[in-house]
Amino acid sequence: MFYRPGMVDALADYESAGYVLFGVPFDRTSSFRAGSRWAPDAMRSASANFESYNSFFDIDLAELPIHDAGNFEAGVLVDDVLSELSLDVAGITEDGKIPIMMGGEHSLTLPCVKACAKRAEGKFGVVVLDAHFDLRDEFEGVKYNHACVSRHILEEVTDNYVTIGVRSGPKEEWDFAKDNDICYYTPEEVTSKGADTLVEEIKEYLDCDSIYLSLDMDALDPAYAPALGTPEPFGLSSLEVRDIIRGLAPMSAGFDVMEITPEYDGGQTAILGAKFIREFIAAHAASMK
Amino acid sequence: MFYRPGMVDALADYESAGYVLFGVPFDRTSSFRAGSRWAPDAMRSASANFESYNSFFDIDLAELPIHDAGNFEAGVLVDDVLSELSLDVAGITEDGKIPIMMGGEHSLTLPCVKACAKRAEGKFGVVVLDAHFDLRDEFEGVKYNHACVSRHILEEVTDNYVTIGVRSGPKEEWDFAKDNDICYYTPEEVTSKGADTLVEEIKEYLDCDSIYLSLDMDALDPAYAPALGTPEPFGLSSLEVRDIIRGLAPMSAGFDVMEITPEYDGGQTAILGAKFIREFIAAHAASMK
Amino acid sequence: MFYRPGMVDALADYESAGYVLFGVPFDRTSSFRAGSRWAPDAMRSASANFESYNSFFDIDLAELPIHDAGNFEAGVLVDDVLSELSLDVAGITEDGKIPIMMGGEHSLTLPCVKACAKRAEGKFGVVVLDAHFDLRDEFEGVKYNHACVSRHILEEVTDNYVTIGVRSGPKEEWDFAKDNDICYYTPEEVTSKGADTLVEEIKEYLDCDSIYLSLDMDALDPAYAPALGTPEPFGLSSLEVRDIIRGLAPMSAGFDVMEITPEYDGGQTAILGAKFIREFIAAHAASMK
Amino acid sequence: MFYRPGMVDALADYESAGYVLFGVPFDRTSSFRAGSRWAPDAMRSASANFESYNSFFDIDLAELPIHDAGNFEAGVLVDDVLSELSLDVAGITEDGKIPIMMGGEHSLTLPCVKACAKRAEGKFGVVVLDAHFDLRDEFEGVKYNHACVSRHILEEVTDNYVTIGVRSGPKEEWDFAKDNDICYYTPEEVTSKGADTLVEEIKEYLDCDSIYLSLDMDALDPAYAPALGTPEPFGLSSLEVRDIIRGLAPMSAGFDVMEITPEYDGGQTAILGAKFIREFIAAHAASMK
Amino acid sequence: MFYRPGMVDALADYESAGYVLFGVPFDRTSSFRAGSRWAPDAMRSASANFESYNSFFDIDLAELPIHDAGNFEAGVLVDDVLSELSLDVAGITEDGKIPIMMGGEHSLTLPCVKACAKRAEGKFGVVVLDAHFDLRDEFEGVKYNHACVSRHILEEVTDNYVTIGVRSGPKEEWDFAKDNDICYYTPEEVTSKGADTLVEEIKEYLDCDSIYLSLDMDALDPAYAPALGTPEPFGLSSLEVRDIIRGLAPMSAGFDVMEITPEYDGGQTAILGAKFIREFIAAHAASMK
Amino acid sequence: MFYRPGMVDALADYESAGYVLFGVPFDRTSSFRAGSRWAPDAMRSASANFESYNSFFDIDLAELPIHDAGNFEAGVLVDDVLSELSLDVAGITEDGKIPIMMGGEHSLTLPCVKACAKRAEGKFGVVVLDAHFDLRDEFEGVKYNHACVSRHILEEVTDNYVTIGVRSGPKEEWDFAKDNDICYYTPEEVTSKGADTLVEEIKEYLDCDSIYLSLDMDALDPAYAPALGTPEPFGLSSLEVRDIIRGLAPMSAGFDVMEITPEYDGGQTAILGAKFIREFIAAHAASMK
Ligand SMILES: [Mn+2]
Ligand SMILES: [Mn+2]
Ligand SMILES: [Mn+2]
Ligand SMILES: [Mn+2]
Ligand SMILES: [Mn+2]
Ligand SMILES: [Mn+2]
Ligand SMILES: [Mn+2]
Ligand SMILES: [Mn+2]
Ligand SMILES: [Mn+2]
Ligand SMILES: [Mn+2]
Ligand SMILES: [Mn+2]
Ligand SMILES: [Mn+2]
Repeated sequence: MFYRPGMVDALADYESAGYVLFGVPFDRTSSFRAGSRWAPDAMRSASANFESYNSFFDIDLAELPIHDAGNFEAGVLVDDVLSELSLDVAGITEDGKIPIMMGGEHSLTLPCVKACAKRAEGKFGVVVLDAHFDLRDEFEGVKYNHACVSRHILEEVTDNYVTIGVRSGPKEEWDFAKDNDICYYTPEEVTSKGADTLVEEIKEYLDCDSIYLSLDMDALDPAYAPALGTPEPFGLSSLEVRDIIRGLAPMSAGFDVMEITPEYDGGQTAILGAKFIREFIAAHAASMK
Repeated sequence: MFYRPGMVDALADYESAGYVLFGVPFDRTSSFRAGSRWAPDAMRSASANFESYNSFFDIDLAELPIHDAGNFEAGVLVDDVLSELSLDVAGITEDGKIPIMMGGEHSLTLPCVKACAKRAEGKFGVVVLDAHFDLRDEFEGVKYNHACVSRHILEEVTDNYVTIGVRSGPKEEWDFAKDNDICYYTPEEVTSKGADTLVEEIKEYLDCDSIYLSLDMDALDPAYAPALGTPEPFGLSSLEVRDIIRGLAPMSAGFDVMEITPEYDGGQTAILGAKFIREFIAAHAASMK
Repeated sequence: MFYRPGMVDALADYESAGYVLFGVPFDRTSSFRAGSRWAPDAMRSASANFESYNSFFDIDLAELPIHDAGNFEAGVLVDDVLSELSLDVAGITEDGKIPIMMGGEHSLTLPCVKACAKRAEGKFGVVVLDAHFDLRDEFEGVKYNHACVSRHILEEVTDNYVTIGVRSGPKEEWDFAKDNDICYYTPEEVTSKGADTLVEEIKEYLDCDSIYLSLDMDALDPAYAPALGTPEPFGLSSLEVRDIIRGLAPMSAGFDVMEITPEYDGGQTAILGAKFIREFIAAHAASMK
Repeated sequence: MFYRPGMVDALADYESAGYVLFGVPFDRTSSFRAGSRWAPDAMRSASANFESYNSFFDIDLAELPIHDAGNFEAGVLVDDVLSELSLDVAGITEDGKIPIMMGGEHSLTLPCVKACAKRAEGKFGVVVLDAHFDLRDEFEGVKYNHACVSRHILEEVTDNYVTIGVRSGPKEEWDFAKDNDICYYTPEEVTSKGADTLVEEIKEYLDCDSIYLSLDMDALDPAYAPALGTPEPFGLSSLEVRDIIRGLAPMSAGFDVMEITPEYDGGQTAILGAKFIREFIAAHAASMK
Repeated sequence: MFYRPGMVDALADYESAGYVLFGVPFDRTSSFRAGSRWAPDAMRSASANFESYNSFFDIDLAELPIHDAGNFEAGVLVDDVLSELSLDVAGITEDGKIPIMMGGEHSLTLPCVKACAKRAEGKFGVVVLDAHFDLRDEFEGVKYNHACVSRHILEEVTDNYVTIGVRSGPKEEWDFAKDNDICYYTPEEVTSKGADTLVEEIKEYLDCDSIYLSLDMDALDPAYAPALGTPEPFGLSSLEVRDIIRGLAPMSAGFDVMEITPEYDGGQTAILGAKFIREFIAAHAASMK
Repeated sequence: MFYRPGMVDALADYESAGYVLFGVPFDRTSSFRAGSRWAPDAMRSASANFESYNSFFDIDLAELPIHDAGNFEAGVLVDDVLSELSLDVAGITEDGKIPIMMGGEHSLTLPCVKACAKRAEGKFGVVVLDAHFDLRDEFEGVKYNHACVSRHILEEVTDNYVTIGVRSGPKEEWDFAKDNDICYYTPEEVTSKGADTLVEEIKEYLDCDSIYLSLDMDALDPAYAPALGTPEPFGLSSLEVRDIIRGLAPMSAGFDVMEITPEYDGGQTAILGAKFIREFIAAHAASMK
């Protein structure tokens, strides 16, 4: 019997699916290391490592309506990629499905946020886990650079926004964050509050009906995720990120896992990225039961 | 636009296809290094490196009826894998299509040979490129070990058989080869004859209407193919192997590329393996024009 | 002066030894990644990194009667390997020595458990550190698959059994564990109890005179042990595992460190595995002083 | 004594230099693998492997006026990078020095060619070693894509052009080459002619006073150069490339070594690239004696 | 615009600099793994990953007077290297600048300590973070072996000395430490006290005006720093080390980061090492404001 | 059944052995890359890849009296290592056995040459395959540097000396070679003569009864042997080296394979090194039949 290699347990066709996975092998604006173009396929390979059953939620992923749509055909120009991707993701959200993106670089989050925002009923917000503010207006002459994604979310979508794990940025970004009352949490703050308390605090702060949840994997400490475009020491633990995902997934209309560069380790980071996708789906599905 | 990651230029559906690619991620009897389980996906990734056009044959692969059927669901037990695979490949040959296998270990060749033999019209033969004789009756207690595949082809299918690139085996295998008048060529013999002359000589020797062509990548010198289960120095050049494939593809009813272990280099061997598949298809298709 | 490369500080001959180390380079049923066949030699190489003196126990390993018996000659068939290994390990236990196995895959633990159980005086138990339940009856058509080892321990040896670090398994395994009152601890439970309390609780639960202690390295978080057959995020810390070993070694009649696949990192996991072996021996020897 | 890490034997300051080395860590349009951004520094590291003396030419590089200008500050946008680089290289050629670029991707060759052409006295030509035609007008929506560099040389600089090692391209490129009487040599033609004869033939064909010589390292067979952006089997040997460089360096006003992606091997390709730069300089300097 | 590849944000010339960085690519006495010769350049490459701004201290490194002097020209003989390095570092300290060394192996710390001690006003001390005591008098016949550096500091410079993270050494070293009342902290002690309390305790113990701070990266747990000459499990966390650096930098007259062997991971350890250098400089500069 | 991991087919004990293999994990004077300390064990692991039977010579290595003595206990100081090694190898040659060394760096060849010279009956010579002359009197302050080994052979043992594959050295070495009528062959000369003719020419030139044969693996082209201390492009092919070994082994009283640094590739170079050892033994043994 032959099977198409892809995300394990993504057994549904598009029509019946509630969760639509897709990869975007695009890393053209990556500032330090390129290579996140290989992450979607690496996460698919890594998924064969896992049992379909999630005991915490008593959910079997093989029984959920998950579809793997494959990879987005990405060109070289970030503006074109973002606008084309926007259309495809809007298709998914308009069909009432939850888009789950496997990056690729963080710039790709913007069109997914937009697609989810457009379709959102009620108040909409965005939560980003990231070591970096990504609040620049443009970087290296490129507006939609991966280092600017949060700024464009704030300006083009919503300022109902929280970012977690932040510990790096030029002074201008820290000032911008403070001047604009952006809600952010450093890793130390996450640890001292605890993930569960933090999740409650964020929910209260955002006070919204649905969110988009974006995970730039560099939010994590490199001990857990060494293979990244811009790894930043002193980050979140994998348990903290897991618990934040578990807490926020139920209200999420879209999710992504970004910035993994699989050629810089022996699989560790892609395995963790794939696991987070599975936790997200299980947590979301469990909340629907 | 989303696409399913797979062999590039394999754009046909099964029904319309003339060439049916599939991977078999199985390496359970590998004697030295395991890891050929990762080769089918590595060759698919590598295929994105290539232009669809083959100038030597003036053939565009994107215009040929090539189908990528995905990977065979292989268990742990070699006997079960071989018998199940046998059925699936027989399905392909019975539909009049050419099976092209991406191994996986060399033991997997036997069921493909059998499927092609059963369906062959006229006289049938087998050509194996390999550093090793693979003539043992059994190895490490396993009859269908990867080190025995040629012996079983001889015993169970046909002795209309030639092997190219041989340079390694226990004395018993060399004696068996000589005692049974097995036609083999060492790399030195290939080089001194030249690939084109060799191909003619083999065609004459076999005197048959169709063959199965099996490429154990260790036929090549490790300079060209370092990432293998059992790399053996002093082998064939990539040009020699290419020219043998070009010469024999037109009469081939099936083909495989086996024993690549992609984790032992930075892509070099999988890229070459994917290229040989493309040369095979182009050469075969060109002969049909 | 020449020396045989091997486990450093394993200076005793077999006769005078109390601890007999051996490797089993066997990984034929590994479900995700193969490669634990290379782990015994990798742990031996890694051992050159360490001082012979253990300050916590005030024990010098170079002064202990440790013998490195080399590697077990493993064929391809798991049934044969297990039954042959069974004999060899029984030889060790019958000579009153403590067998310490360097895997290889986890299926190899069963014959060691049996050998220790047979020789045990008084009540015997088993403690397994593992991310996985390994409670399947068979997997992929193979009864003695590495994913089934705990089930066979329970059925063929003893149900005086505890497993630590568990966080992955199909629903059937979680149900089986609950239905059969199997004592297991998730990593979160280990962290919240603390290793020392846990050890006391386990000792009380087992209420036995001696145990076999098996460490499937995937019990650990991939931050500490990335090079594994089936790495599972959200695992134990290296300190937790160390302290459990320290606590249980004194009552252990056998020990193993399994499932390391050294080609997936730069030495980190094999170094940790070798360290655990040294901690086990030091802890055991200290308790005899 | 401290020294600035850089190209070994590049001991001259800019003013006194006749050869000006520089790196351009830019790979944003790379189609298959990115990573040539790391090649300039990798070639500098590799240069410490070599003796300063070249016995073939009886030249000591440490005595030649070689300057390492460092790396070009490259942004994300290829158009900006090319136009800024153009100015800097023009500065070098206007100062009467020979620019030697360490890529980075092949698109960067165009501004160097232009700078050399502008400054050339007499008839000017271009020789490109490449597996690919690079004759597309644009690729993936990007005019100055690395896959288009030769087309732009032909259109914007000169059609006094030869390319060596070509074996890959879409049918359109092969047709374009034939329709426009572009002089190209496949690897087989190079081998059958011999490098020395080929060099004479090219000199005669070009009939010019000076050339720019560009080495896309994928002209080489992956056996010699596995770490590349788009490795293509069946290429030139390292001796053939060396002899072509030796033959053409004396008439070259500029040179580059492009498309090495050092993270895909253990140093082999960067070492060879650094060696070619040293052969180029020695050959050029020897011709001035 | 060209720039010399080097430590990012080290924009000052020597004369105006307050912080003078230099690398020493020397690893000839390394006992387990060599390769720290590549660490200085690896940390320079890694520095491009970071923002210049340090938000904790509200300091922008690009505005500080940091100079990268390049690499020390190290021969093969450790005695010669140490005595020559001694002169060069003394030049730096005599100019009133703070030397920051990127090793290379730990033996290189001694000449830096001496240079700082000679120039120190008031009482001088030394703090070493290390998994190992490094208290041997000589090792493998070499007095100035990397395994002896702390002993020579004690004997040749000062016994106003503290070491943090110690967990490995022969019994003789533990005895020596106790017999000589050497102040040391195991990782467990660091964790139980907390870094801030520890720093205060150390400051009180040393009771001195300035110190030299040496970071043998193996003080860290391999989860944070896998690529080391002699990685030792059960070490400090990256946060603990960061906080100790933050606490002690203000009183430090010199600093080093030693023993990274970058070829054993995908960049994780060199990135962390570069980060610690940046934390040191920011913490020191902030204390001067 | 347990076996000691070691060179496969080295089944004899020391007393009955005719061939005594040993490793010397020493690389302290290596100028570019260290790491040949890991080569002996890497070649032992690689040996499991090969059949015991050599068909060219109709010799089964498992039937020959080969002993693996293990590794030499090497300290840090090259002078001490050479003098101690000298004694151990002299023990082997005095017992009438052929020493076969697995380096380690090339400096180690000198004591082996001396031991063989002392014991030689009749006229003695030395043949070295190397990319480098190794004719310096001292290097980086170290007389017995790996870059000086041939000079010391000439001065301390015999000038009955030939070196093959030479293509790199400072002008002083080329002059020294010419001034002293040293017989050397560049790779181009080897190729144009052919290995067999070359062997005859060398035998005639040396006109001696026995030789020591030393293979610095960098004699080979990096396509065949990328993992080396100082890889040098444009070298010998693996067939040329094999045929030189086959030709000279019968008159060799000692042999070595040096300078492999296994961490720089995926096994390719160590596999080839192990193969050459097997070819040497087979060729020597065949000549005794
Ligand atoms: Mn981001
Ligand atoms: Mn980020
Ligand atoms: Mn085979
Ligand atoms: Mn084979
Ligand atoms: Mn297990
Ligand atoms: Mn497990
Ligand atoms: Mn090109
Ligand atoms: Mn190209
Ligand atoms: Mn130290
Ligand atoms: Mn240390
Ligand atoms: Mn040499
Ligand atoms: Mn050499």
